[in-house]
Amino acid sequence: MKILVTGGLGTVGKGLVREFRERGHQVFSLDLHHQHDQYAFSLRNDMEHPGYVRCDIAEFRQLERVFDTFGPFDYVYNCAAEFGRWNGEDYYEQLWRTNVVGTKHLIRLQEERGFRMVHFSSSEVYGDWPDLMVETVPDEYAIRQMNDYAMTKWTNEMQVRNSAELFGTQTVVIRLFNTYGPGEYYAPYRSVNCRFLYCALHGLPWVVFRGHKRTSTYLQDTVNTLCNVVDNFKPGEVYNIGGDCMHTIEELSDAVLEATGADPALVSYRDSEVLTTRVKRLDAGKCVRDLGHRNTYSLAEGIRLTARWMAREYGVSLPAEAVGGTR
Amino acid sequence: MKILVTGGLGTVGKGLVREFRERGHQVFSLDLHHQHDQYAFSLRNDMEHPGYVRCDIAEFRQLERVFDTFGPFDYVYNCAAEFGRWNGEDYYEQLWRTNVVGTKHLIRLQEERGFRMVHFSSSEVYGDWPDLMVETVPDEYAIRQMNDYAMTKWTNEMQVRNSAELFGTQTVVIRLFNTYGPGEYYAPYRSVNCRFLYCALHGLPWVVFRGHKRTSTYLQDTVNTLCNVVDNFKPGEVYNIGGDCMHTIEELSDAVLEATGADPALVSYRDSEVLTTRVKRLDAGKCVRDLGHRNTYSLAEGIRLTARWMAREYGVSLPAEAVGGTR
Repeated sequence: MKILVTGGLGTVGKGLVREFRERGHQVFSLDLHHQHDQYAFSLRNDMEHPGYVRCDIAEFRQLERVFDTFGPFDYVYNCAAEFGRWNGEDYYEQLWRTNVVGTKHLIRLQEERGFRMVHFSSSEVYGDWPDLMVETVPDEYAIRQMNDYAMTKWTNEMQVRNSAELFGTQTVVIRLFNTYGPGEYYAPYRSVNCRFLYCALHGLPWVVFRGHKRTSTYLQDTVNTLCNVVDNFKPGEVYNIGGDCMHTIEELSDAVLEATGADPALVSYRDSEVLTTRVKRLDAGKCVRDLGHRNTYSLAEGIRLTARWMAREYGVSLPAEAVGGTR
Repeated sequence: MKILVTGGLGTVGKGLVREFRERGHQVFSLDLHHQHDQYAFSLRNDMEHPGYVRCDIAEFRQLERVFDTFGPFDYVYNCAAEFGRWNGEDYYEQLWRTNVVGTKHLIRLQEERGFRMVHFSSSEVYGDWPDLMVETVPDEYAIRQMNDYAMTKWTNEMQVRNSAELFGTQTVVIRLFNTYGPGEYYAPYRSVNCRFLYCALHGLPWVVFRGHKRTSTYLQDTVNTLCNVVDNFKPGEVYNIGGDCMHTIEELSDAVLEATGADPALVSYRDSEVLTTRVKRLDAGKCVRDLGHRNTYSLAEGIRLTARWMAREYGVSLPAEAVGGTR
């Protein structure tokens, strides 16, 4: 099948491109930057195996050009987004432009051209819902979105549904829960797993907020499940994808200390963070049932593998006892 | 008091500027365009009674410059917005940029400078809520926003609340219900009242969607109530402002025929419009109680006055029997 991945240089996007290629699909990807890897190509050249093209989804002309030049696509995975709540508070101009105007552009093209879409939402749309996060919760209860990032994601879900109702577009929405793994480079706004690991590897202090509980999903598990969507595509469905094992942020931090051999004195502890959901407990039943989701990496193992990847990428050495691992 | 009105060239904004000046306040306003009326001034001049400045609220630098040059303000009335659901679907780039990024800029300035804000939301945030629209409904029930315009307005309300919680900013939110009156110039995306009147005066056909019920509020009644907010400012409050008399769109159309003497053959009738709330019945109790809201114009009278204003503005003549009126 012919698949386009937007945000193809992002953590999840890269994983999708690789996995889909391994499964024999023809994959195109786009992202904000020029790049010159093995798949890079220029719209002006006529290479045999084009793969990546620079395109800002918030610029309709650029996006339309990708579809005109390389389409039609069977599926579009819309991973392109400004990510994270504090990133969204600090860079809200880009947040709204990319996530909401960009996605609306894509929906307009979908209404015109009829491809199927897999759109990436976030567990943030559950706000501070205190109970089990089942996919139907935001349709049944008034959820107050706690930050602009969450608002963009919920907006996207409503845009997708209104378009499905008005134009019959076919989209599956994925609500990702804290996914981490090799491929996630450090930035101050990245996942807590990534940030702790980076700090640990560089001897930098980090802060653990007490009273928050999360699941963590190893990237490869998430990617496998995401790629399965094309084999059982049910338009209009919304899926949580996340791990089945809850942990506190303290436990995550401990796993990072373990995997990196970092000094526990680097860690300081604070009370609950504002505008942040305290406990995220998800119902993953539907993604297991429909998409064959499996969590095959324990937190300890996933963190160990990610630490190893990150140490290599940043040229930092790990203590010998931390380098072992089961895969 | 020193008051800034954003969107000061809009229908409501103009009304606010005039009424506040009549009440003796010092009023500044901003909007997208240069203009040269009696209040116009340039940031480069040092006129004694500046009143209007060109500024796009989505451009932070321009907005900050207004505050630096003419502030501090006691109150900011944020009327600047892309208006209307079909306008929002056709011009969603401007919609999200102005309504959401622009308002976020204003909130950031508010967090820094501490002025009080009156923010304009819309009855659209009630989605297709079938019962009485009480201010608390969206906090208690899951409302599906039916179009991007509604989403921007609901987003703004959440942005305002999150800022109040995090930074103690003081804002009152106003949900306007179908306001019309002299000052609303025709565009295809304007209020149904405005569009029907314009068509009637120009002998153009118009379409009445059956099965929709609305209230209509005459602009001057709305403006009076809005100006009262500064006399009884309750931070965090949300107010519906709207009329107390429900009418069908057919009845509105009949009032337009009556006021303009237009040919009834211009009107055609269709079934319910998509993505549009069928019945909007509001609870106006709170704005009556706190803000002294009064509906002093009947629909027939308001339409007659608006028709007269519009005929004059567009240089169209009304039949003699339609020109009469009680005020």
